[in-house]
Amino acid sequence: MTTARLLPLHEQISGHVARLIASGALGPGARVPSVRRLAGRFGVSTNTVLRAFGALEARGLVEVRPQSGHYVRRQARGPPSQPRLAPEARAASAVRPDDRVPGLFRGLRRCRVTALGAAALAPQLLPGERLARLASQVARRAGARALSYDPLPGHAPLRRQVARRLAGAGCSVEADDLVVTLGAVEALHLSLGAVARRGDAVVVESPCYFGVLQLLAALGLRALEVPADPAHGIRVDLVERALARERVAACVVVPTASNPLGGTMPVPARRALVELCSARRVPIVESDVYGELHFGGERPAPLKAFDAGGWVLHCSSFSKTLAPGYRVGWVAAGRFRDRVEELKYAQTAATPLLTQATVAEFLLDGGYDRHLRRLRRALGEQVARTREAVARHFPPGTRVSRPEGGFLLWVELPPGSTDALELQRRALRHGISVAPGPIFSARDRFRHCLRLSAGHPLTPDLEEAIAALGRLAAR
Amino acid sequence: MTTARLLPLHEQISGHVARLIASGALGPGARVPSVRRLAGRFGVSTNTVLRAFGALEARGLVEVRPQSGHYVRRQARGPPSQPRLAPEARAASAVRPDDRVPGLFRGLRRCRVTALGAAALAPQLLPGERLARLASQVARRAGARALSYDPLPGHAPLRRQVARRLAGAGCSVEADDLVVTLGAVEALHLSLGAVARRGDAVVVESPCYFGVLQLLAALGLRALEVPADPAHGIRVDLVERALARERVAACVVVPTASNPLGGTMPVPARRALVELCSARRVPIVESDVYGELHFGGERPAPLKAFDAGGWVLHCSSFSKTLAPGYRVGWVAAGRFRDRVEELKYAQTAATPLLTQATVAEFLLDGGYDRHLRRLRRALGEQVARTREAVARHFPPGTRVSRPEGGFLLWVELPPGSTDALELQRRALRHGISVAPGPIFSARDRFRHCLRLSAGHPLTPDLEEAIAALGRLAAR
Repeated sequence: MTTARLLPLHEQISGHVARLIASGALGPGARVPSVRRLAGRFGVSTNTVLRAFGALEARGLVEVRPQSGHYVRRQARGPPSQPRLAPEARAASAVRPDDRVPGLFRGLRRCRVTALGAAALAPQLLPGERLARLASQVARRAGARALSYDPLPGHAPLRRQVARRLAGAGCSVEADDLVVTLGAVEALHLSLGAVARRGDAVVVESPCYFGVLQLLAALGLRALEVPADPAHGIRVDLVERALARERVAACVVVPTASNPLGGTMPVPARRALVELCSARRVPIVESDVYGELHFGGERPAPLKAFDAGGWVLHCSSFSKTLAPGYRVGWVAAGRFRDRVEELKYAQTAATPLLTQATVAEFLLDGGYDRHLRRLRRALGEQVARTREAVARHFPPGTRVSRPEGGFLLWVELPPGSTDALELQRRALRHGISVAPGPIFSARDRFRHCLRLSAGHPLTPDLEEAIAALGRLAAR
Repeated sequence: MTTARLLPLHEQISGHVARLIASGALGPGARVPSVRRLAGRFGVSTNTVLRAFGALEARGLVEVRPQSGHYVRRQARGPPSQPRLAPEARAASAVRPDDRVPGLFRGLRRCRVTALGAAALAPQLLPGERLARLASQVARRAGARALSYDPLPGHAPLRRQVARRLAGAGCSVEADDLVVTLGAVEALHLSLGAVARRGDAVVVESPCYFGVLQLLAALGLRALEVPADPAHGIRVDLVERALARERVAACVVVPTASNPLGGTMPVPARRALVELCSARRVPIVESDVYGELHFGGERPAPLKAFDAGGWVLHCSSFSKTLAPGYRVGWVAAGRFRDRVEELKYAQTAATPLLTQATVAEFLLDGGYDRHLRRLRRALGEQVARTREAVARHFPPGTRVSRPEGGFLLWVELPPGSTDALELQRRALRHGISVAPGPIFSARDRFRHCLRLSAGHPLTPDLEEAIAALGRLAAR
């Protein structure tokens, strides 16, 4: 399996030195142990150590002084601060389809460096070969049956597996409560369609994942943007204030490792939000796609776990953990279940059986939890290293989120930096894709912000791209 | 391949006799050539002929008179008439989600005989094994790549193949004009979403496929029902009258072998409809899912072939010809292409790659046209035989459509027959599923009509189910 590859010796050595620098054990300007000493300590050739130093240089961590040796570069600053809280919106805003979103994806096709722009994982982090083998077996075994319509609400073995996992996370959800969807996107679309009508206001996080805003635009809904805390997610006190001010058809909330800000709601806030909304009979559309990617061991209980009255429509998928291209998601829509199934039937009729059955097989087979543990570890490392690279290369005063899950970073540029849309245009000319802040708001906020993905390991190329972005931002 | 199986000798003989009866060469009460004679003529054993006669008896075509031989049963009546034209609607009606539609599908699960109720093909008519083999190869070959999001507008090799076929049918459509969708249902949903807003009126055929009405309900659109002719599809003169009477956001038209009535628009009517709508700047949402299932040799040119101004949104899929459960469809949306792609991105983001790539591979591999020729022949036969069975078993005066493509029959019961919804309830108690007329109208029309599917070969069991329906209808 690709995720189990051995780490080459030179990478282990460069990792060791990078950790010494990150921890402060080697401060700025400090001399790095010599090539000879490291070779002796690790029992490798000097060539291997030199290769490790090459990578550290390329990452901008060390510099070579002729006739003297390697030194920690003197650009280390204290760790960057978290981004600031967004300003509160006074009223819901109309949401127009944002041309800049398709623009972002068209831009991706022309880019050399796409890893920072899209919220996608490096393929080597996913169990591609194993899924391919299972898909191949499932296709052969199902034979002609795989051709039939899979009747709603979706493949029963898959629903049983998902229900089992949700029960493990504290939700009282059974297989029959679930409707399988084409990824979480369709789950969100059906959920909003089930609870809101054209013209209604919907509470969203600020900043808000542009996909949710595109959905609101498609459904003719208005966005009431409620500030989210970069550490703790949407502010429940501000949701309460918003509900008091305006009639709201639903709240769309990403409680764990939210996109783009990365906050994860603490348990008391989760409970408080569900109680608040249930008491006011306001449905919560929960997107839990990053729920399994929490770095801190056990996954936080979804909002659904606190839902006694059926007001939470819990949406998720395997797109961020297993197989983006399979488009297998689900919704546990509580009291709105039948309406969601009805809309699913009307709008896309059914979900392909082959992909559903392959994912079900993977879950049955075991090893999903082991895969998730490995994935979380890799992402925690990637997020930390990408964050360090931003801190190294962006202008002083740049703030960067410190997510405890997922793989997205929210970067807030200091005053006087390049406008984010202008930065995106310039980056595109360098073949680098980034997601500019303004697409994360219906009110054109966040013109000084960027979302960067840490879904790929920080290669020297990627670090160079981040350095280029830092230079463009400083202009 | 399952579709290439040889026809057993006894089936060939029973088919021969059935055709003699259907053509009138053997009239009611006529003596069928003796077992010995047929055995001699075909050079087979008398056992084989006896087996053929057994099947003919089971189908109710012949009866045995002891000591005498086999005779054509005396229940043959003249061929049934076509259903009558639906009455014209004076104004558009609101469309509510029809509970009877999910009811139909829930009913299917409890039925012993489902073949008549759902518009689905018998699995043995589809190249299941071959597709399974290709899917398995595609999965293995694509490996980890199959996990990635397939970027919009969909898998390029598939779009190229579809464009090539459309060009062959006279459409000037290129791969880049196409957006791949989750079956034709999503294509219709996106198309309507692109051209109409909540509250708008949309012209539909009367009777109208209930899936289209469910879509209108989901989108908050009103239905303006325009009568369709059982032979020639939607009446263009009546569309013109409707457009003069009411502002209309779109026309939804199934030009070939429409569901449920089966009419196929002649070429001049196709041209006239496109010219009429283009002149008034009214988009046509074309559903061409039965376009490749025309019995008369070459497929009729889609409406898209007459579309100079980009007003036709051509929707179709492989669900009625190749792989229902793969959910691979497309839309060539003309001037609305970008809006459709935007909505697709917002609502379901992408279509699974595995199923797209498998269909593309099947098309590339060749043999799709050969498969279609075989499928059309089989369906022509099934439709004729199912129609005969209805004529034999339903009350005198029953009208049955005579479609020139597809596999659906529209049955109009004579005055005094059982109400269609009551008939459906009683049939359900007998374990038989049918689609009752009223779900094909937003105005609760067609209470004396049924849609029956001829997607399955007429086995003795199926004939017995039709006979039971006939008895229930006569009450």
